[in-house]
Amino acid sequence: MGILENTLRQIENLDKEAIAQAEERLDNLIKPIGSLGALEDIAAKMAGITGKVKNKISKKNIVVMCADNGVCDEGVSAAPQEITYAMANYFTMGVTGVCVLAEHNNAELTIVDIGVKGKFDNPKIINKKIAEGTKNILKGSAMTREEAVRAIEIGIETVDKLVAEGYDLLGTGEVGIGNTTTSAAVLSVLSELPVETVVGKGAGLTEEQYINKKRVISEAITLNSPNKEDVIDVIAKVGGFDIAGLCGCYLGAAKNRVPIVIDGFISSAAALCAYRLNPLARDYMFSSHLSAEPGAAYMMKELGLEPILNLRMRLGEGTGCPMAFNIIEAALAAMNNMYTFNETIMSNENLVDIREK
Amino acid sequence: MGILENTLRQIENLDKEAIAQAEERLDNLIKPIGSLGALEDIAAKMAGITGKVKNKISKKNIVVMCADNGVCDEGVSAAPQEITYAMANYFTMGVTGVCVLAEHNNAELTIVDIGVKGKFDNPKIINKKIAEGTKNILKGSAMTREEAVRAIEIGIETVDKLVAEGYDLLGTGEVGIGNTTTSAAVLSVLSELPVETVVGKGAGLTEEQYINKKRVISEAITLNSPNKEDVIDVIAKVGGFDIAGLCGCYLGAAKNRVPIVIDGFISSAAALCAYRLNPLARDYMFSSHLSAEPGAAYMMKELGLEPILNLRMRLGEGTGCPMAFNIIEAALAAMNNMYTFNETIMSNENLVDIREK
Repeated sequence: MGILENTLRQIENLDKEAIAQAEERLDNLIKPIGSLGALEDIAAKMAGITGKVKNKISKKNIVVMCADNGVCDEGVSAAPQEITYAMANYFTMGVTGVCVLAEHNNAELTIVDIGVKGKFDNPKIINKKIAEGTKNILKGSAMTREEAVRAIEIGIETVDKLVAEGYDLLGTGEVGIGNTTTSAAVLSVLSELPVETVVGKGAGLTEEQYINKKRVISEAITLNSPNKEDVIDVIAKVGGFDIAGLCGCYLGAAKNRVPIVIDGFISSAAALCAYRLNPLARDYMFSSHLSAEPGAAYMMKELGLEPILNLRMRLGEGTGCPMAFNIIEAALAAMNNMYTFNETIMSNENLVDIREK
Repeated sequence: MGILENTLRQIENLDKEAIAQAEERLDNLIKPIGSLGALEDIAAKMAGITGKVKNKISKKNIVVMCADNGVCDEGVSAAPQEITYAMANYFTMGVTGVCVLAEHNNAELTIVDIGVKGKFDNPKIINKKIAEGTKNILKGSAMTREEAVRAIEIGIETVDKLVAEGYDLLGTGEVGIGNTTTSAAVLSVLSELPVETVVGKGAGLTEEQYINKKRVISEAITLNSPNKEDVIDVIAKVGGFDIAGLCGCYLGAAKNRVPIVIDGFISSAAALCAYRLNPLARDYMFSSHLSAEPGAAYMMKELGLEPILNLRMRLGEGTGCPMAFNIIEAALAAMNNMYTFNETIMSNENLVDIREK
């Protein structure tokens, strides 16, 4: 049995008993029942993921999948394809959006070359290159089915390694010029929503470029006719290595019972793929923010996830994850450190900061 | 000239030149223009507040105004009035929601007794008691006009002291059983919205209690007929000491050019009062989250502020502030530490983490 098939079989339900115990404690904390809103849901879900009522995060990591997309030949992006290569290097220099936001919230990055055009001379980039970018989906499949499976497995293996190293809260990010095009194509096929509904202007297209992008996606779907019941077929025909790799990260996180945060549009498309491969994977995901791309809201709805942040971001890279990490840790702090009514009554005799003892 | 009048005259515009310089730097950071969404707006606004393009927060503090409300005699709250006194003490023990969330994000609390029923024997609670709770607004004014002014001035003085001590990012919180009733009354008068539209179920009312709460607010407004053009009259007649004190905090923060974060429904009502007293005060405010109370959305709209978090919280205490602090600091990290395209090109020759040098 292959790594992917094996992983899909190993994903299990959340621990319902731990959730019930967590909810009981939440209801007894000194506050009106339910008044911490989504923070309570986050804390209870974390209990379901780990099996423990009280949880504390020790190490956080954001996996950034870097890959090029052959569809860039069709002028679907405002930025030149070389930006993918350059950004992958910049990630290792600590100077991009996700770098400084991760540093601010004490998270680390794992930069994976899963299919960038060009050879890196940079030891901080993990070489998992499948090919120098995908093929142009307006001419045929983005990749072979075997390559799609391999890309998903790279995501699984990356997470397996991080979990073994003690990371217990993960995030997902990417860079890949043209990847809002491939993500919209994947989403359109999986959701059966018209291209018009799911396609956005990415990192800043003109109206003319936007019309062209929609045309390219429509024609690519017609040409390749991916089977919407077969996620791997969809990824292989109109997706990208980054989407596949991130899809694997979600599956790996679920298998390892480790929480994983979705960033923006591309991360969401990958999360949807993971969910379609095994619906239980969804239970290990948290949504950080709602991408400004129009298809993002649909995906959150199908996944049944509620974005934590309201920041109108559309950068990608994993930039939403570090801030969501902080909120998740805040939810755990509330669960762990607030007193229950009983604990308060017992400590009421001496009004000093008893937690300092 | 009194402290309040003086403060209102000292509030000035944001520094437009600093905002322009900040926006120029933001547009040159290595990302598509505007792609960090609200984070960019936050960083630019901070520049306008302080006059500097790059800002770093050194000390954070949440002012928690504690006060009782005479209207509790009318059964408007699910919780007994004694909870106000108890919670004020619990704030000093580190065990309530705002305590643990503040600790998680490295913020301190300032607990002010501005009108709690009962005498505290607790050195960690600052005694600024105006009276042992307001009067029942169904029988007459909550407080005198002089008391309202004094309560606002206590807020101003509290912020003046914190700023002198080096706190450069402030939050607002409160406890006071019955204060969603007084806040809804203030909001209904100031907005001219019907009571039905602005009143919520607070910390968990039954349907019967909810109907009673709306009746009490309507009758109190009719009885006292506050002048909506005179904010102090509105606070004095149907408001509370906590609302007045927090209103003063916003004015004090604006005067001192220090950013201040709004928490939930009561904090928002106080922010609206400050804005009506001097519209420039709004420019120093940030909205943390959208309270689940129905009037909250109206207030954010009038204030022109966009909540950062999407967490369905309705606890109060200032619980939204610590998480918003983290996002504001994340925005500053992006501004300060991301590279511009020029900085990247200059450092491109040696691909090492140049920021480590």
